[in-house]
Amino acid sequence: MKRNTEEIYKESLNLHRLYRGKISIMPKCPVKKLSDFNYWYTPGVAAPCKEIYRDINKVFEYTNRWNSVAVVSDGSRVLGLGDIGPYAALPVMEGKALIFKYLGGVDAVPIVVNTKDADEFIKLVKLISPTFGGVNLEDIEQPKCFYILDKLREELDIPVWHDDQQGTATVTLSALINSLRVVNKKIDEIKIVLLGAGAANMCISRLIVKYGAKIENIIMLDSKGTLHPDREDIKLKKDIYKEKWKMCIESNKWRIKGDLGEAIKDADVLIAASKPGPGVVKKEHIKKMAKDAILFAEANPIPEILPSEAKKAGARIVATGRSDFPNQVNNSLCFPGIFRGVLDVYAKKITDEMCIKAAQAIADFAYKRGINEDYVIPTMEEWEVYPKIASEVGMEAIKEGIAEKKNLTKKQLYKIAKKIITEARKKIELMS
Amino acid sequence: MKRNTEEIYKESLNLHRLYRGKISIMPKCPVKKLSDFNYWYTPGVAAPCKEIYRDINKVFEYTNRWNSVAVVSDGSRVLGLGDIGPYAALPVMEGKALIFKYLGGVDAVPIVVNTKDADEFIKLVKLISPTFGGVNLEDIEQPKCFYILDKLREELDIPVWHDDQQGTATVTLSALINSLRVVNKKIDEIKIVLLGAGAANMCISRLIVKYGAKIENIIMLDSKGTLHPDREDIKLKKDIYKEKWKMCIESNKWRIKGDLGEAIKDADVLIAASKPGPGVVKKEHIKKMAKDAILFAEANPIPEILPSEAKKAGARIVATGRSDFPNQVNNSLCFPGIFRGVLDVYAKKITDEMCIKAAQAIADFAYKRGINEDYVIPTMEEWEVYPKIASEVGMEAIKEGIAEKKNLTKKQLYKIAKKIITEARKKIELMS
Repeated sequence: MKRNTEEIYKESLNLHRLYRGKISIMPKCPVKKLSDFNYWYTPGVAAPCKEIYRDINKVFEYTNRWNSVAVVSDGSRVLGLGDIGPYAALPVMEGKALIFKYLGGVDAVPIVVNTKDADEFIKLVKLISPTFGGVNLEDIEQPKCFYILDKLREELDIPVWHDDQQGTATVTLSALINSLRVVNKKIDEIKIVLLGAGAANMCISRLIVKYGAKIENIIMLDSKGTLHPDREDIKLKKDIYKEKWKMCIESNKWRIKGDLGEAIKDADVLIAASKPGPGVVKKEHIKKMAKDAILFAEANPIPEILPSEAKKAGARIVATGRSDFPNQVNNSLCFPGIFRGVLDVYAKKITDEMCIKAAQAIADFAYKRGINEDYVIPTMEEWEVYPKIASEVGMEAIKEGIAEKKNLTKKQLYKIAKKIITEARKKIELMS
Repeated sequence: MKRNTEEIYKESLNLHRLYRGKISIMPKCPVKKLSDFNYWYTPGVAAPCKEIYRDINKVFEYTNRWNSVAVVSDGSRVLGLGDIGPYAALPVMEGKALIFKYLGGVDAVPIVVNTKDADEFIKLVKLISPTFGGVNLEDIEQPKCFYILDKLREELDIPVWHDDQQGTATVTLSALINSLRVVNKKIDEIKIVLLGAGAANMCISRLIVKYGAKIENIIMLDSKGTLHPDREDIKLKKDIYKEKWKMCIESNKWRIKGDLGEAIKDADVLIAASKPGPGVVKKEHIKKMAKDAILFAEANPIPEILPSEAKKAGARIVATGRSDFPNQVNNSLCFPGIFRGVLDVYAKKITDEMCIKAAQAIADFAYKRGINEDYVIPTMEEWEVYPKIASEVGMEAIKEGIAEKKNLTKKQLYKIAKKIITEARKKIELMS
């Protein structure tokens, strides 16, 4: 497996060098001769300009803003590589843009930003927001990422999304919904351990609680052990680590202090979203869990424990972030569909409720096809899931009154999304 | 003519509505199946990330930064429409991106910005600069545009270009070079009148002086008349209007005060880059000019005087900004080639000398094909001019020691540029 990864790295480097990057700007309108520019540029272009000047909402009709998403990063927490800065983060942003187009038909524009200052970052995104119909924050370290996401969600009238928080939380919830269906347990009756108190697990805890889990039945651990009200180190910084302090107070009704070995006893679910590397979760941990244990080992590229070992130790369902094991918990399964949905109804926000609808749509998609221990979540190959997500998310936005386009049915939304995604895939295949 | 323009407006609006914008993000690498993302995204993408982290210059090898240009505007002076703001400016920026690709093979990304503050604008462009290999400033009002351009040229290590200044100046110089060849006059012996003291004419004056025109033989006019040292209104604001005040002092050796009627006597060249609309320049003005008068009436969409009238009044050569008259002085003739050139050698700046090389390349291209009164400048149809421009500009950057890639010959540069542009056109035709 190690060797396989090395080979992928080598080939990836070769391919990146060969193609000198991954994305390009292409016309989406026909350009056959220079006189076409009389319409697309001067003098004709003055006409749509004037229309938009008269009514700013027309910008969604006459420009590509309706389908454009900024993928913005300061490169402060890229993949498992840490703070490698904006330049080195650019290949990830281009890859993200590729996925946005291929799976969601969305035009995503990478923007890497040369600042570590959260307020400067926020200001910048606000300044360039007239260009875009949505913002995808990417690979930003915590706690900065919480602050940036909260501020931008509050201050912008276009949807803002932090994939490492909401994306991971949404697909994790999907997998959890179906895992519980397989083992026949109820979310409000189970004990859940979250290993890692980073961006992902913090958002996962919020989302699963909104979905029905009892916050007091959750135990969260950071690198120093379980969260509880006596964690003075967190209390001291509670103004910065608001969410974390909230978990200290509200979760862990047993007041368990200590490490994973303590926390894991009789847990039904373990969601590990920590530092990559094997051995973080050990067989002994799994053995202490309740019957029909559910384990999500989401670290990339190396999960906290290998599925084979976890199974041997008694876990019934194991999910990881990897495509070469069953049950891949993969953000790419949700963000292309979620953005497709919000863009198609001109939604102003992506609320937690919209994430939950997306999670439910993903879970139900797999459920209808027949779930089992090794199939609690669809694969990216099952691309028909994306228009499903889009229509659920779009409908929820309409229901919440935050969509500009209000008069669409779920069926219509599904058709619109399916058409756009199908066309994008066709074009990409034509050009490949 | 009026009616024709109205029809173009109407059709342009229809087309913009039909296609819902003009540009999209497309892969430039093959994407045929989901497993390709193992290389383009996780886990493989970590490899180029790490390489760039080790050596920041590798970002030009492994990402599309080498071919990406930000087209940035605050929408404060869009076409002849004035300050219509960022949203309404977006159709122009998308059109510009289309031209960048079709004529220069450059991936240009529109960024419209929600601020009128110059320093905020500058800061923003600096923050997002790691994403791009160059910056094209667009449709920014003066005097702000001078300040922004100067600051960014100073502080960024990628080329920054303001098309309304440098672009217009470059093509105007091209047309002037060949016009003087046709009438057999020398640039250091002629009297030149510049009508309008905006971004374009200010840069034109600087460039033609660097090319050989005598500054004392130039007369520039703003809306209040000729510039001269007694212009107290300008003197009062000389800290803001630096360039204009410089013209007051150094140009107009005759100290002529008054309007165009006074300034134009015995002028060899009139370059009008003022407010659009006919009648700004009158037949009587042309009649007062020297023999073999050269007139550039560059206002768009309606030139300051119609070519037919100017000819009747005695002008020998007339150029306008319009494609339906001979001699179109059109920025699109230079910026795609100039950016192609600077991107291909990783140049850090676009100097005035590089603009002059571009102007000379454009002029020589037409000259070799045989110039005359109605053909002093190539048309955009003659697309072979772009790799010519690119290779001249690239070589000049190498000569000036501001290019990262130093070991390329002019011939090699020409071949590289031609290949990239040809491929872009082919792809666009395939998709149209």
